Amino acid sequence: MRVGVLTGGGDCPGLNAVIRGVVRRGIQDYGIELVGFRDGWRGPLEADTMPLDITAVRGILPRGGTILGSSRTNPFKESGPGRTGVERIKDNMAGLGVDALVVIGGEDTLGAAARLNEAGIPVVGVPKTIDNDLGATDYTFGFDTAVNIAMEAIDRLHTTAESHHRALIVEVMGRHAGWIALHAGLAGGANVILIPERPFDIDKVISYVEHRFQTRYAPIVVVAEGAHPQHEELALQSGQLDAFGHVRLGGVGQYLAGEIEKRTGKEARCTVLGHIQRGGTPTAFDRVLATRFGLHAIEAVHDEAFGNMVALRGTEIVRVPLIEATRELKLVPVERYAEAEVFFG
Amino acid sequence: MRVGVLTGGGDCPGLNAVIRGVVRRGIQDYGIELVGFRDGWRGPLEADTMPLDITAVRGILPRGGTILGSSRTNPFKESGPGRTGVERIKDNMAGLGVDALVVIGGEDTLGAAARLNEAGIPVVGVPKTIDNDLGATDYTFGFDTAVNIAMEAIDRLHTTAESHHRALIVEVMGRHAGWIALHAGLAGGANVILIPERPFDIDKVISYVEHRFQTRYAPIVVVAEGAHPQHEELALQSGQLDAFGHVRLGGVGQYLAGEIEKRTGKEARCTVLGHIQRGGTPTAFDRVLATRFGLHAIEAVHDEAFGNMVALRGTEIVRVPLIEATRELKLVPVERYAEAEVFFG
Amino acid sequence: MRVGVLTGGGDCPGLNAVIRGVVRRGIQDYGIELVGFRDGWRGPLEADTMPLDITAVRGILPRGGTILGSSRTNPFKESGPGRTGVERIKDNMAGLGVDALVVIGGEDTLGAAARLNEAGIPVVGVPKTIDNDLGATDYTFGFDTAVNIAMEAIDRLHTTAESHHRALIVEVMGRHAGWIALHAGLAGGANVILIPERPFDIDKVISYVEHRFQTRYAPIVVVAEGAHPQHEELALQSGQLDAFGHVRLGGVGQYLAGEIEKRTGKEARCTVLGHIQRGGTPTAFDRVLATRFGLHAIEAVHDEAFGNMVALRGTEIVRVPLIEATRELKLVPVERYAEAEVFFG
Amino acid sequence: MRVGVLTGGGDCPGLNAVIRGVVRRGIQDYGIELVGFRDGWRGPLEADTMPLDITAVRGILPRGGTILGSSRTNPFKESGPGRTGVERIKDNMAGLGVDALVVIGGEDTLGAAARLNEAGIPVVGVPKTIDNDLGATDYTFGFDTAVNIAMEAIDRLHTTAESHHRALIVEVMGRHAGWIALHAGLAGGANVILIPERPFDIDKVISYVEHRFQTRYAPIVVVAEGAHPQHEELALQSGQLDAFGHVRLGGVGQYLAGEIEKRTGKEARCTVLGHIQRGGTPTAFDRVLATRFGLHAIEAVHDEAFGNMVALRGTEIVRVPLIEATRELKLVPVERYAEAEVFFG
Repeated sequence: MRVGVLTGGGDCPGLNAVIRGVVRRGIQDYGIELVGFRDGWRGPLEADTMPLDITAVRGILPRGGTILGSSRTNPFKESGPGRTGVERIKDNMAGLGVDALVVIGGEDTLGAAARLNEAGIPVVGVPKTIDNDLGATDYTFGFDTAVNIAMEAIDRLHTTAESHHRALIVEVMGRHAGWIALHAGLAGGANVILIPERPFDIDKVISYVEHRFQTRYAPIVVVAEGAHPQHEELALQSGQLDAFGHVRLGGVGQYLAGEIEKRTGKEARCTVLGHIQRGGTPTAFDRVLATRFGLHAIEAVHDEAFGNMVALRGTEIVRVPLIEATRELKLVPVERYAEAEVFFG
Repeated sequence: MRVGVLTGGGDCPGLNAVIRGVVRRGIQDYGIELVGFRDGWRGPLEADTMPLDITAVRGILPRGGTILGSSRTNPFKESGPGRTGVERIKDNMAGLGVDALVVIGGEDTLGAAARLNEAGIPVVGVPKTIDNDLGATDYTFGFDTAVNIAMEAIDRLHTTAESHHRALIVEVMGRHAGWIALHAGLAGGANVILIPERPFDIDKVISYVEHRFQTRYAPIVVVAEGAHPQHEELALQSGQLDAFGHVRLGGVGQYLAGEIEKRTGKEARCTVLGHIQRGGTPTAFDRVLATRFGLHAIEAVHDEAFGNMVALRGTEIVRVPLIEATRELKLVPVERYAEAEVFFG
Repeated sequence: MRVGVLTGGGDCPGLNAVIRGVVRRGIQDYGIELVGFRDGWRGPLEADTMPLDITAVRGILPRGGTILGSSRTNPFKESGPGRTGVERIKDNMAGLGVDALVVIGGEDTLGAAARLNEAGIPVVGVPKTIDNDLGATDYTFGFDTAVNIAMEAIDRLHTTAESHHRALIVEVMGRHAGWIALHAGLAGGANVILIPERPFDIDKVISYVEHRFQTRYAPIVVVAEGAHPQHEELALQSGQLDAFGHVRLGGVGQYLAGEIEKRTGKEARCTVLGHIQRGGTPTAFDRVLATRFGLHAIEAVHDEAFGNMVALRGTEIVRVPLIEATRELKLVPVERYAEAEVFFG
Repeated sequence: MRVGVLTGGGDCPGLNAVIRGVVRRGIQDYGIELVGFRDGWRGPLEADTMPLDITAVRGILPRGGTILGSSRTNPFKESGPGRTGVERIKDNMAGLGVDALVVIGGEDTLGAAARLNEAGIPVVGVPKTIDNDLGATDYTFGFDTAVNIAMEAIDRLHTTAESHHRALIVEVMGRHAGWIALHAGLAGGANVILIPERPFDIDKVISYVEHRFQTRYAPIVVVAEGAHPQHEELALQSGQLDAFGHVRLGGVGQYLAGEIEKRTGKEARCTVLGHIQRGGTPTAFDRVLATRFGLHAIEAVHDEAFGNMVALRGTEIVRVPLIEATRELKLVPVERYAEAEVFFG
């Protein structure tokens, strides 16, 4: 048996650990030969491969990124005359003697994987999202790393907030789901946490900030990049927000810093963590989870359990149909946000 | 309502986060007054208390240790004339107007808590073990921190192993259960992992080590302090092992270093991480888990759900009877160890 | 003898370590009584003090921030009827029985300290600048911490740059001097480092970036917040730059990301580290340097060597006249920048 | 010109950064061709080489260890019939067309380098010692990394010491010089620091420990592996010490733990950091210093300034004759130890 592996979408610590798990168990336990496809779906579309043996995966466990490269290429958006993306992938797989694919990626990549599987290409998926917003699994790898990086940043800001009397804002990843903000804010002891799921009342944010300034501690605000003010605000702020209520310029962190300075008269500073949340060495949790995902994904291939992805439930790795997996976004539920609210202000 | 809080047993990152969660929600949401008992069971036995208000828990979230202090005092082992430990605790609670206890601790502390609860003292428990060996919960706080510290140590050893051709051994915590060794070894890319649940064959360990020396990489061995050779070995090694097959002097790490040097002729060095696995700032995972345990423990008190402890199941915090909780040790199952074995040698 | 201590200006890891060093040696070795003034010069101006004994400094060594608080209050800019700032400080010191001051701060704070010393108030200074731009000392504490934080951020970006084919920009502190960018960029293996001392040629930056994209690695650009394009650029970019050639909106990092995307057609992302470089626990280098500064500052007070500040020369702590100390900014010299240029492109 | 590079002795974070600096400037600025010799002096003795071009050094800056490998082979201790070690190296260099050597190593390796240089082999040295005990340079790379690792371990122990009332001992590297113990102990806030240069009085150590136990904090003792009791102790302890006053079994850390338990009746626990101090990614200080050493070493080769090693003086890299460099060990002077003693007890 010959199996291709590819990684798609944005960076996420743990991708290499998955690849290593697939390769080690695949070769050693099942005698499967593995082939790496470069740069996500571009690899099978263009038959661009790299060798994927034991030597290729040596030393990659602690490394961020992916030795296979990645891209946002989508086989169903490939247009042009002649063959469709699906046909090209089928032809290339046949040409290379590749029987099945292990596809490591997020919503888009797995969505394409599900459709390819329906089109007759045997696929097993491995879920990947830094944002932890895939419904079918308790956690995805990379999330724990991102949360720890954001938490360490918040830890550093506390002493400055306390001794220098200024509000500090940390903008973290999370366009649609606020999991990183929720966990990092809870772990870092933030005084306010703002997430996309809950449009915020800027007056209430300011009142938390002012309450905090009355103690000798200054406030720390953690905000997901996708958080935005309530619609009531829209009219007033219309210059700064676009048609969807999203902050137009400089991001929501800068917007908050501006509002706090204007309304409280205190200094406010913003840190935008950006891509440092997506790169570098994974935490132990993510390395273990990613490694186990890899081991179980190739086991599913061996069992010919195609059309599934691996998922974490409690401490067990289980199989879930790919279509279910990408059906809906896992958002922060009200009761989890309420836990964080205990510490607001 | 007036509720006492105590922490018992060894250190574990996250204790302060639990206390903070109990206090913040207790005071703010339920109007409960909280009292800290010092040094585990010694506190209620001797009526030694400290104030536990919002100010007392400010800034403690990221700090290891416990502001309440700890001890190994057991109320059922307190001897002497006059009143029993249970009676003294009851009298002191009555004298202080304390209606119930939140008890944060491991097997021993929770075992005592269960018996006190049966004796009529209303108790809610919070499980605490660095070793992750309590059966009733998916994870305990402190474990993730310990695993990350051990993993970072292993990460550092890799470059030396590779370039300096010597075997490196890391001895980690785990007297009865090998969870720290398993997760840290899996996350750190160890070439052999030895745990108490699986008495090891020293010949097999040496063969892994020798196999590894044949590549340009040198071996890294992760060993739980409670790991020990198989009984077949006992006769041969009798000088070095005690009656229970445990290594007599210098620990199992030193024993392995000695055997590797003797049998392979290569240098071997041992690191004993010791208490650095139990102290210092907790990881995000442990801070979130500990905070949630605290929030849910005081909620259980408010609900008068006494005789229970809080536990993690998947992503949910649930209540479990205290007696169940301490019934049996959660050991590393065969299939989890098999996952790690994929990477041996 | 009774000595006041104050900390002025922005946050800088190591302030607490200095305070602890002053207090421990002052009390134990010289029998000096110490008094903390709160919030920089506001403390002596308003006679706002706090106790500063052995207990007050317990446990503060690893903590960022300053237990004394800080502010940007300047005694020579205090206007109003009646007494000048200098007179108020003299009166308050007399009223409190404070004989001399240990002043921990940057250019502004030490400049005021020098003038107060000339006005007859006995002062010893301790230099503090995250930017390492004070001429009289080899290094200032806080700098090493800032550089390590920035380096760790760059480390994380490398794997993403490599596997995801996008340019990554890190904006670090340094309004006038590029030391943090130089050291962090050199330590992190940046492909271009831009500093205020060397206005950059945007065409050259783009050519480095494009050269790098031709390998399988993507470029990482480290830029000091005060870096700016050469004057030749001014005309073309006039909309985006202000009269001083500084980037108008969103910072120089965002400007670079925009230019790179526009000119190379590749994605570019920017991280703005901001205040996380100024807070949190100091590195060993900074803790040792700050502690030694504290020990030697109070020794200078004991020796009545007023009008001086402590400074590092090689491995020795020496005394330097305060006026010399703040005479000119220490900028990155040409030959140090040339060392970094070896690794550009 | 063709130049060989080798690394000798124990592991030390920063070796790869030196190699990268040598290669990048050598090839780009001077057109020098570089050759890697494998495993220290074994490489030139056996003509075992590896290519050392720009590609070979890509990505190695943040990595501990050495891509060249290392060994303790000494060309002057190579015995056997026929040619001496020096002759073999000369012949091999001639055969490979190698004109000069850059030798990166500690006392032994540089000592051999000095003798080879006198024997007519053009050599430039780069000092390497984790212990910081080479007299000719302010600092050596690797030391700052080791100190930070030890400091972070001490940081973790503090919370346990405070809340769990047990003495904690950390044994760090330093067989002859106590620099790591001094800096890590000072940075970590140790209550006692024991170094080889100052044989300790065990009674005094116990009195510090007991004094500390009287506060609510418990003591942390940092001890260099080469520290030992005073000769007065020898008689009493004779069973535990060997003829040189060194602790016989289990190391000095274990010895201290035993004495503290015996004499104070309190629990004491020991951590032996071992090789984790020598491996893994270097700090920013070490990466910058090592990179600059590399740049300046190949510059010295280009200038034909053979027989020298590079050294740090203040913030400058200078050249120092190899023979001077290894003349005497740099020990901790009395006044530096006195700084640390301020914080004892």
